[in-house]
Amino acid sequence: MNTGTALIRRLIAELGEDAVLTAASDVGGFTEDFRGRYKADALCVAQPATTEQVSFVVRACAESGTPVLPQGGNTSLCGGSIPSTEGARPVIVSLARMRRVRHIDAANGSMEVEAGCVLKAVQDAAAEVGRLYPVSLGAEGSCQIGGTLSTNAGGTSVLRYGNTRENVLGLEVVLADGSVWNGLRGLRKDNTGIDLKQLFIGAEGTLGIITAATLKLHPLPTHQSLAWFAPVDPEAALRILGMFQERCGSSLSAYELMNARQLELVIGHVQNRRNPLDGKHAWHVLVELSNSRGADAMDELLVQTLELAAEAGLIEDAIVASSDTQRASLWEIRHSVTEANKKAGVGLTTDCAVPVSAVPRFIASASEAVRDIVPNIDLVIVGHMGDGNVHFIPMFSFDEWRAMPDAAATGATLRRRVNDVAHQLGGTFSAEHGVGQTGLQEMAHYKSDIELTLMRAVKQALDPKNLMNPGRLVP
Amino acid sequence: MNTGTALIRRLIAELGEDAVLTAASDVGGFTEDFRGRYKADALCVAQPATTEQVSFVVRACAESGTPVLPQGGNTSLCGGSIPSTEGARPVIVSLARMRRVRHIDAANGSMEVEAGCVLKAVQDAAAEVGRLYPVSLGAEGSCQIGGTLSTNAGGTSVLRYGNTRENVLGLEVVLADGSVWNGLRGLRKDNTGIDLKQLFIGAEGTLGIITAATLKLHPLPTHQSLAWFAPVDPEAALRILGMFQERCGSSLSAYELMNARQLELVIGHVQNRRNPLDGKHAWHVLVELSNSRGADAMDELLVQTLELAAEAGLIEDAIVASSDTQRASLWEIRHSVTEANKKAGVGLTTDCAVPVSAVPRFIASASEAVRDIVPNIDLVIVGHMGDGNVHFIPMFSFDEWRAMPDAAATGATLRRRVNDVAHQLGGTFSAEHGVGQTGLQEMAHYKSDIELTLMRAVKQALDPKNLMNPGRLVP
Repeated sequence: MNTGTALIRRLIAELGEDAVLTAASDVGGFTEDFRGRYKADALCVAQPATTEQVSFVVRACAESGTPVLPQGGNTSLCGGSIPSTEGARPVIVSLARMRRVRHIDAANGSMEVEAGCVLKAVQDAAAEVGRLYPVSLGAEGSCQIGGTLSTNAGGTSVLRYGNTRENVLGLEVVLADGSVWNGLRGLRKDNTGIDLKQLFIGAEGTLGIITAATLKLHPLPTHQSLAWFAPVDPEAALRILGMFQERCGSSLSAYELMNARQLELVIGHVQNRRNPLDGKHAWHVLVELSNSRGADAMDELLVQTLELAAEAGLIEDAIVASSDTQRASLWEIRHSVTEANKKAGVGLTTDCAVPVSAVPRFIASASEAVRDIVPNIDLVIVGHMGDGNVHFIPMFSFDEWRAMPDAAATGATLRRRVNDVAHQLGGTFSAEHGVGQTGLQEMAHYKSDIELTLMRAVKQALDPKNLMNPGRLVP
Repeated sequence: MNTGTALIRRLIAELGEDAVLTAASDVGGFTEDFRGRYKADALCVAQPATTEQVSFVVRACAESGTPVLPQGGNTSLCGGSIPSTEGARPVIVSLARMRRVRHIDAANGSMEVEAGCVLKAVQDAAAEVGRLYPVSLGAEGSCQIGGTLSTNAGGTSVLRYGNTRENVLGLEVVLADGSVWNGLRGLRKDNTGIDLKQLFIGAEGTLGIITAATLKLHPLPTHQSLAWFAPVDPEAALRILGMFQERCGSSLSAYELMNARQLELVIGHVQNRRNPLDGKHAWHVLVELSNSRGADAMDELLVQTLELAAEAGLIEDAIVASSDTQRASLWEIRHSVTEANKKAGVGLTTDCAVPVSAVPRFIASASEAVRDIVPNIDLVIVGHMGDGNVHFIPMFSFDEWRAMPDAAATGATLRRRVNDVAHQLGGTFSAEHGVGQTGLQEMAHYKSDIELTLMRAVKQALDPKNLMNPGRLVP
């Protein structure tokens, strides 16, 4: 009996047969990503139901020298949840069975949830007690809290509420030796030493497995005002953003940009999506205000600000949503981009952020840089403009992609060009998707030696045997 | 020539004679805290003017095996900026000469400042371009940004804007070997590996010296509405907080509690401070709404919410400030508590946070626990109720304190009792002041072995020679 078989038997003995998957037909959904771009074998998939079981699995893996790859909803856009094709096959630890909402304290604005809770279920549980868990993104119906924590997920509400990191009060983590750190605190303030939870947020499972979290809740806004408008160009969109920030302060809760091509793809590939405006416009913005006061006053503020922008010649057309149905349908357009782009072809998704003030320059320079290589390439642009985060996506049809002699290399070259532009503007190649597999080479290329050395020192300190998702995050 | 003398000469040769203080009369202001509770010798005080000079000092100290203690405005309430009486005398590195605002990008909502900038100067520079740097606290006229970063300072605006940690985008840090990490990024999102800046925020100089930071700016609220009211008791104050959160959402920007004794001390010991209400009330709350819209609407919302609270029998009396002058004078009361308490006697300042929902229980139980030991002790209570952060201060007159046979031990016992109550409620002994010297024993007492082991592993990884503020933060 080899090491792998012995480990599997040990896991089955503790977790039960149904909680340890080994058959190809069972593990398929865990070893390939939803877009079909990454695929590699695992030793098995373990599905622990409790923190103690996660602890057992990690300890058993540590003792047998087997790598561990934690997995949430498997919605990574950069291969982060799929094993590598090189190196020892890992045990995939799926957190899907750990999905209890353990506790909600509405007066404290906090809730304790297990890592496998689906993001949407967390949002709903908070709303039931009149609170908001603000992190919101396209995959919210299937991604899990543990995954959003391990990748410090962003999404469409960062402008108002910050990234996932800013919405966590405490964590429970199974460490590399299988011991459990209970850092589940519901405190707004705690200055007692190094803030350990920060290490595990965004670490993509390389320092331990997050098994539960105390999340920060906010007052539930009772009114949303939403508009869709066509700015003349990205520079105009930036100036209008400034007008909204000055006039609406913290009520401004989303400011999302997309180009005409992105809207076309959504309309063409996802059912029941329509152009909110008459005619064709090169650029589109979805802007949301939200607070707890009268809807009328907010709609008025929205309209006034758009009128100011129109008077300044910054806007071609605009509509303000007049019903919950209309608001929902505008948001559906935004949340359909991943589905649309997946159906439309092979999009070379990038995930740059630059200073907000540099977004127009980034779009112009990245377009030029990419078209230097592939002159007439289709460019799909969608992003969280208020955060400086632009998904700039060179898009190929499936036929074009298959016909290219060296598609993978071309893809890597194009991505690098886009990332170079962001880097020159003081930006980053991964704003919210994380490093995963797509970003590993970029880490090696863009990060300073000092930074990589510091990260390696932390990794060595917390995972001396290098078994927690080895080879990831820090090249 | 001994090692210390050689080091001093080396520092003088590089920084100049006026930048290296050794005379007792020169170093006095750096080796004793402003309340006169901590005092110990340093080898010298170095006053570098640039990041390169800080790097030189740290490298020179590393080469001679001399400890380094960074110091900002020396406003620590727990001895954090003063050397210990035990161990080798450190070189105090004062950041006061590094006070340039390097860059402001209003459209990006960011500014790059050097560590020695006084907090007030940073607030003012942001306001000049129509932006808000939200961290605000009593010592803002003298504390420095570097100190607020190294202690993750809280203050009165955490409820709306978060702690200092949530308002930092990037850092520049001189590491333990003297090398400089340039992490000065102005990005709202950056998921490229371990978020290294989180390690240095709140580390109290034990992992490196912060020399500059990119701070996050917010839209400048144009209107503040402010009220002072007397809730029936802390439970009523908690219920009213909930009413404000539900009705005002993110416009609620401060919710500060104090007891009658705290107000009396401010009125009695600080010039031009008056009771805002008629008559005597046991509890007081200062509540602030702020946003960028009409002042009238906000005042109305404030009044309506207070009326609701009054109808529910939760309020004894209330006033709404009607002018900027009146608003300023209400805030002055709140910001005068440290000065008042310093003059009034020996206050055993504690800095607990508990879940917001547990604040009334904390106050009741801590009062009982302390009066079990000293039956009629004066209790001064002031806190950021919206954050669950209560400064519960057993107060002795100077005469009482001098007359006590074992004052220091009694002080430690009383503090421990208060901290015990917080701990039992899932709270912490240091919400915002940090560990400093006062909290070291508490760290050893309350923190789990796993947590201390993790912290020590990080410290060892980043400061293997243990020269960066040794003996602090992690016991």
